[in-house]
Amino acid sequence: MKNFAIGIDIGGTNTVLGVVDIEGNVLVRDSINTPSHGDIDKYMDELSVAVQGMIKSVKLLNEDSAILGIGVGAPNANYYSGTIEYAPNLSFKGVIRLTDKLKAKFPTYVIAITNDANAAALGEMIYGGAKGMKNFAMYTLGTGVGSGLVVNGDLVYGHDGFAGECGHTTLIPDGRLCGCGSLGHLEAYCSAPGMKRTAFDLMVKYNATDSLLATKSFKDLNSKDIFEAAQKGDKIALEVFELTGKYLGQGLADTVHHLSPEAIFLFGGPVAAGDLIFKPTIAHMEQYLLPIFRNKIKVLPSKLNAGDAAIVGASALVWQEIQKSK
Amino acid sequence: MKNFAIGIDIGGTNTVLGVVDIEGNVLVRDSINTPSHGDIDKYMDELSVAVQGMIKSVKLLNEDSAILGIGVGAPNANYYSGTIEYAPNLSFKGVIRLTDKLKAKFPTYVIAITNDANAAALGEMIYGGAKGMKNFAMYTLGTGVGSGLVVNGDLVYGHDGFAGECGHTTLIPDGRLCGCGSLGHLEAYCSAPGMKRTAFDLMVKYNATDSLLATKSFKDLNSKDIFEAAQKGDKIALEVFELTGKYLGQGLADTVHHLSPEAIFLFGGPVAAGDLIFKPTIAHMEQYLLPIFRNKIKVLPSKLNAGDAAIVGASALVWQEIQKSK
Repeated sequence: MKNFAIGIDIGGTNTVLGVVDIEGNVLVRDSINTPSHGDIDKYMDELSVAVQGMIKSVKLLNEDSAILGIGVGAPNANYYSGTIEYAPNLSFKGVIRLTDKLKAKFPTYVIAITNDANAAALGEMIYGGAKGMKNFAMYTLGTGVGSGLVVNGDLVYGHDGFAGECGHTTLIPDGRLCGCGSLGHLEAYCSAPGMKRTAFDLMVKYNATDSLLATKSFKDLNSKDIFEAAQKGDKIALEVFELTGKYLGQGLADTVHHLSPEAIFLFGGPVAAGDLIFKPTIAHMEQYLLPIFRNKIKVLPSKLNAGDAAIVGASALVWQEIQKSK
Repeated sequence: MKNFAIGIDIGGTNTVLGVVDIEGNVLVRDSINTPSHGDIDKYMDELSVAVQGMIKSVKLLNEDSAILGIGVGAPNANYYSGTIEYAPNLSFKGVIRLTDKLKAKFPTYVIAITNDANAAALGEMIYGGAKGMKNFAMYTLGTGVGSGLVVNGDLVYGHDGFAGECGHTTLIPDGRLCGCGSLGHLEAYCSAPGMKRTAFDLMVKYNATDSLLATKSFKDLNSKDIFEAAQKGDKIALEVFELTGKYLGQGLADTVHHLSPEAIFLFGGPVAAGDLIFKPTIAHMEQYLLPIFRNKIKVLPSKLNAGDAAIVGASALVWQEIQKSK
């Protein structure tokens, strides 16, 4: 008997799902639109048709298989209550009791939900580079900056289920406007749009009309452009990575001072830049650390496959729930 | 049969100890010098004579009593290894295996050690305002700023036992020199000496020769002077509290974004200033928070008796160890 878990990632435009084995291999994948109509029950019907389809195809591929449960990653998801609450990028309004709705469709399955960054951290622990680690953190760098924190082998959910929002720690008092409305948060500096803002900051500072980045509009420039320019030796682009590392290093040091993790994993687009981002991040983190923490904390790229990470992370919830119930 | 725990707090100049019941009442107290001679074995002999004396006096006071263990709070103490490591304010050099040494003297007792701020957090949980809370943080404001973090009912020790150093999160990049050698850490702003530095900052800014604080030297001015001046309506002193609250609020918001605690307790001298410090701290914390956390997090004064808190906090380790072993 081979066991599988289903992972579902609910994004703003698409919902991706897949069947994952205990090694993190994705057996089958599917995807449906996350609707803009806001009708959650209609969406649940569509989602359960897709899940039923996957269950059938797994049986066809491997007769001696069992699906143990469904893990869901979603924005503003609350592990404790099984809800998605006031997610700004989804059309479903208010508090959605998602796990109850899934349980009604699949009553025999283990079902759990958490936010996408927490799911990524669990994925890293069950399948990736954090296997065997009891204390680590994960930062996911993308349009925003998410994080998942693991203490004593468990995800930190906190009192109300919303812990692990390290993207909203304050780096610069009264600094840049963050998407959440506050000023100076890490996300406003270390997300992909944050790197773009840093690039324009530097072009302003040096009046750098000769930079490879100077030909694109504020709306169009993206982090891939910055990476490509850095690879060509563009000074502004290189300094963007240096500064992004400085900002991120400050944030990681705060996490170390809170939790003393064994490692911090970085996930997302900018991570592909390798040394360009890791070197300044580590150097600046070390500079902010208390001596007792220096040269101890590993800062590592996530080992999750970027393409499948959302599905794989969500599916990790199932194994974690089964482990906990033992 | 009435049960008791012994609490020992090892400070730079004095070691205080006491016998504490499960309600946090201190039955007997004692104190010996923390020696400057650096001879740990000689000190352990003196300490165990003091402990033996306390055990005898408890028996005299209450024949039907049992002492269950000894909890120790000390700077740079490591819960996992039972050691004090390179404590800058103690004369004992290197790594001191303190719990092993105590076990040799008192083999039948539960024995555990942690740093003083962690001990205070445990004290708050076992005896104080955090009774029944599973997720909370405690900041201790004094010569330095310590912290103890509780997640899922357990103190966070992290990978190496040194977690919970929130006094060393960075508030202002390239800001004030912290005692640890880094720049811009919270401790350089929110400790008692930090408040003194803020007072001089403001006198410089406004050239405030008429402030009540303007008659004391940089060496002599202390946080009590600032509190007394604030009570008399001194504008500089009032702004010191306002700014200290702003700094502290920024730090507390970072802790909330990491851990989503039910409450944050403040302990130490400045806390006695009440609204003067709590109002700006809460207002600024709220301003830095993500909407999902706003108006949810309680910021409360510690309920531990300031005079006994070190002993009481250390003794809490004993009950916590007994609870864990069940």
